[in-house]
Amino acid sequence: MGREDTIWALAFQEARAAAEAGEVPVGAVLTAPDGTIVASAGNRTLRDHDPTAHAEVLAIRYACKSVGSERLPGYDLYVTLEPCPLCAAAISFARIRRLYYGASDPKSGAVENGVQYFADPTCHHAPDAYAGFHDREAAELLRAFFKSKR
Amino acid sequence: MGREDTIWALAFQEARAAAEAGEVPVGAVLTAPDGTIVASAGNRTLRDHDPTAHAEVLAIRYACKSVGSERLPGYDLYVTLEPCPLCAAAISFARIRRLYYGASDPKSGAVENGVQYFADPTCHHAPDAYAGFHDREAAELLRAFFKSKR
Repeated sequence: MGREDTIWALAFQEARAAAEAGEVPVGAVLTAPDGTIVASAGNRTLRDHDPTAHAEVLAIRYACKSVGSERLPGYDLYVTLEPCPLCAAAISFARIRRLYYGASDPKSGAVENGVQYFADPTCHHAPDAYAGFHDREAAELLRAFFKSKR
Repeated sequence: MGREDTIWALAFQEARAAAEAGEVPVGAVLTAPDGTIVASAGNRTLRDHDPTAHAEVLAIRYACKSVGSERLPGYDLYVTLEPCPLCAAAISFARIRRLYYGASDPKSGAVENGVQYFADPTCHHAPDAYAGFHDREAAELLRAFFKSKR
């Protein structure tokens, strides 16, 4: 596998592991400016009893602790689903450089859907955002998960 | 002091303590359905190396851990400044019942300003929100803080 494939494989592995634990299947991977993978996470809101324990937030928190800073300029985030307002704000505050995501999320997304936070005047740093990576696989994971919950 | 005065005094105490530690002066207090104070916090983004360590998020995280749930129905949040999109989303996800805040924040707020998250169709739970509590004191704290930073 090439570098990008390795990153996405890890993100989807995190998403599937989240689903198996009963969490909404979303996975995220964070890379440093030199391209190395520095953090990965899946949703843990139920396990951690923390409504803010989304995959993106956990990866950002972990990397920030490692680096010893509340900002990660030059870092890129890969996530299987369009970030929600919580995660979009965390991405902005952490000064993430590029955001790559899989499926769009018309119900709760905040990048191309909903509040479109990065385009709002109150957003003081917007990453370069790229959508549509492995979107069918990401959407299918979510569909299967919510179907199993009904 | 009455109950409300005690809560606001604690919120402002947290905000002032944050300022003294070099953090943006915002303080939050969370109360349980029976009215007891269960958590209070000030901003800690610099000290914790965590861009998500806003006062509201910290109070919610703490209370959720105590309760053993990712939701806090019937809980009320008091905060000295209008919540940003990160905190507004955390408040929504935690199912907070009522939000009381001090000063409006045209630059970064997400309740009456900016993305007005609670009014968006992608917001699936909105608290009852009340603004303007001790707003002069809250705004003055912020002004003094940012002036000292220049």
